Amino acid sequence: MRTLHLNAFLMGVGHHEAAWRHPRSQPARIADVRHYQELARIAERGRLDSVFLADGLALAGKVRHNALGGLEPLTLLVALAAVTEHIGLIATVSTTYNEPFHVARKFASLDHISGGRAGWNIVTSAGEAEAANFGVERPPHATRYARATEFLEVVTKLWDSWEDDAIRADRAAGEYADLRRIHEIDHAGEHFTVKGPLNTSRPPQGHPLLVQAGSSEDGKEFAARHAEAVFTAQQTLQEAREFYADLKRRLPAHGRRPEDVLVLPGISPIIGSTEREARALERELDELVIPAYGLAQLSHLTGLDLTEQHLDGPLPDVPAETEGAQSRRKLVVDLARRERLTVRQLLSRLAGGRGHRVVAGTPEQIADQLQEWFTEGAADGFNIMPPLLPSGLEAFVDLVVPELRARGLFRHEYEGRTLRANYGLPRPPSRYAPVA
Amino acid sequence: MRTLHLNAFLMGVGHHEAAWRHPRSQPARIADVRHYQELARIAERGRLDSVFLADGLALAGKVRHNALGGLEPLTLLVALAAVTEHIGLIATVSTTYNEPFHVARKFASLDHISGGRAGWNIVTSAGEAEAANFGVERPPHATRYARATEFLEVVTKLWDSWEDDAIRADRAAGEYADLRRIHEIDHAGEHFTVKGPLNTSRPPQGHPLLVQAGSSEDGKEFAARHAEAVFTAQQTLQEAREFYADLKRRLPAHGRRPEDVLVLPGISPIIGSTEREARALERELDELVIPAYGLAQLSHLTGLDLTEQHLDGPLPDVPAETEGAQSRRKLVVDLARRERLTVRQLLSRLAGGRGHRVVAGTPEQIADQLQEWFTEGAADGFNIMPPLLPSGLEAFVDLVVPELRARGLFRHEYEGRTLRANYGLPRPPSRYAPVA
Repeated sequence: MRTLHLNAFLMGVGHHEAAWRHPRSQPARIADVRHYQELARIAERGRLDSVFLADGLALAGKVRHNALGGLEPLTLLVALAAVTEHIGLIATVSTTYNEPFHVARKFASLDHISGGRAGWNIVTSAGEAEAANFGVERPPHATRYARATEFLEVVTKLWDSWEDDAIRADRAAGEYADLRRIHEIDHAGEHFTVKGPLNTSRPPQGHPLLVQAGSSEDGKEFAARHAEAVFTAQQTLQEAREFYADLKRRLPAHGRRPEDVLVLPGISPIIGSTEREARALERELDELVIPAYGLAQLSHLTGLDLTEQHLDGPLPDVPAETEGAQSRRKLVVDLARRERLTVRQLLSRLAGGRGHRVVAGTPEQIADQLQEWFTEGAADGFNIMPPLLPSGLEAFVDLVVPELRARGLFRHEYEGRTLRANYGLPRPPSRYAPVA
Repeated sequence: MRTLHLNAFLMGVGHHEAAWRHPRSQPARIADVRHYQELARIAERGRLDSVFLADGLALAGKVRHNALGGLEPLTLLVALAAVTEHIGLIATVSTTYNEPFHVARKFASLDHISGGRAGWNIVTSAGEAEAANFGVERPPHATRYARATEFLEVVTKLWDSWEDDAIRADRAAGEYADLRRIHEIDHAGEHFTVKGPLNTSRPPQGHPLLVQAGSSEDGKEFAARHAEAVFTAQQTLQEAREFYADLKRRLPAHGRRPEDVLVLPGISPIIGSTEREARALERELDELVIPAYGLAQLSHLTGLDLTEQHLDGPLPDVPAETEGAQSRRKLVVDLARRERLTVRQLLSRLAGGRGHRVVAGTPEQIADQLQEWFTEGAADGFNIMPPLLPSGLEAFVDLVVPELRARGLFRHEYEGRTLRANYGLPRPPSRYAPVA
């Protein structure tokens, strides 16, 4: 039977932008590894598929009103690997400001260290502030995706450069590795020239899991060709179903089946033992929102300067569609128009999840929402974004997960030892291995 | 009283190039994180200052006859941080094939995760095989050092970009950070343009410890200006004293005192409970050496193609000095001439430590050697390179360390919680902080 896949999306002391101001959070723990280790253990106790860390390569002036300045995701995930045994570990790493040799090696190392639990969320870094930390002009959208495509090709070639049986460790003969099974990749392309082989042996999963989160046209095509899981922001069941169907429809053209890619919308569950309690928590967080911060975030999400916007009027008349570069803008503009929100109301709606869906309710009500999207063709699972951490993750694991299990929608025990095994995805063979 | 500083230089299953063939090693553990975690725990049990990981960015065809293909050092050190509390964690990272923003952030993250135990061994990556993995021609020696100098400037600016008291976390006022204490670095130089600030807060040590290992003229000048610890390969007391004095003599010109930089020669101790037992182990390892591998290594160390060299004749007449690029060549050629070694004998002498000193003996004899160099102005401590791992590190910690303690040469307990504290080095202030 088809069951849900659930990731714990970890972000500082919570996904709500005012989480750090709430008495139930501890903002001093933002760079404290033990905080994240505790979160990973909670998620593993609930048998969630993985923990996931987003990333950006600039501070971008947002730290005055939010708890930022934490740890680099790949580095942090190793510390989480050390205190867990089963849960997957997915880090965001940019293809625009990195070299494929380093990225291949670091994920291969994380995969070895974790016994096959690594996943890579591939992003192309749209921000201007990021470009300024690497001494370049921000490349155009299409260039970033072209580079990402070639980057991924190089990385997977490097992961394949040691065949699975390359190591012989024959002490008597003095032969450690069979050089016929270790390959130079001799990649020479538009963006990269890489000889190889990698200097780390093949990762336990063959390839760490490939995850993608872009919802633009280029993003969806990239996901349809390469991704094995897709994180996405969707506000309504109808839009989520359209996105889901669109993505799955693109797969056959690339020789892939619908079950080869899992679609996982984000959701921020505000959980109370009664609906009234959930609403009260939602209101508490809402009252801690700082409008100036919200306007800066809104400007960032839409790519428009809205920092001087009047709070109690409607969103100005801006085009929802752009040339594919700002898929989040359409979501935000559609949301404001559909629900006739003032700017202040819009900021509240976005404060919980930066465009991801926020649902307040009892564990049963949250489970209802997850079940509906899952059975109505809108999701294969969810990226869980607790408003407060650790308390919101604890509430999800201790209250919602049992409810999902009672409905037969979620596992009681892990299926396997690797992230791929728990996602039900195959282990890719090396492209250089002889065909059996 | 002045005491020794000791690092455990970890390398696969041992520093001897035939370690993997010896029955006391387990070559299958080369990519097994638990192997390295066990080594770190042993070193910490002995109260050693740190563990150190070398690195290169290419496999370079050496894997047929040696156990390679292990884990990326910075990634691995996080896993060692998770199972230790006091020991320093020093990783090698190249300035030639990286971006300063990433390197600053990863070391800052490791420093946070380890509670102030991170150190960076700065290398410039001389190999041609490394350049081929990054799509460039190998830059000339001087260019690599010029880039390294600017790279380090950018990295330390980024570490300083958050002042120590930048985080206010004032929930009532909604002010997380004081923006007057977080600085754009606005670096614009020959090699890098980086705006900053870093998106990870200031590391606990201010700056992770800076380590350097080049012994060329450029390398020594770089060390004298920037390094706080210098790893070096020295074969004789006289040469080691000259190197030590040379380096310390360069410091005043850069406003630094002799005690601001620790000089740590490498030594591979082959330990037996009797001298006879130590010699027997040395011979066992020697007999496992593969001449073809040794010749390839010799060619790599000297930058000369010696792969077809006749084994039972002398080293051909090659110039010992080069233009500063190959300081290891001089060491090797001097060694062969001084001791009138055949090529086969030279290979044996190099097999233990790639040019580092190898000493076989009882714990007392090893301690005598360390004491002599320490008291005779040749060393502030040592980089310990056990021939076999873990057994050689266990022998050092269990047999040599007690002997050093009995002589008053080594600590019984750690002085502090950070690598800097244990090295007796100060914590640098942020360059952007107001002068008190």
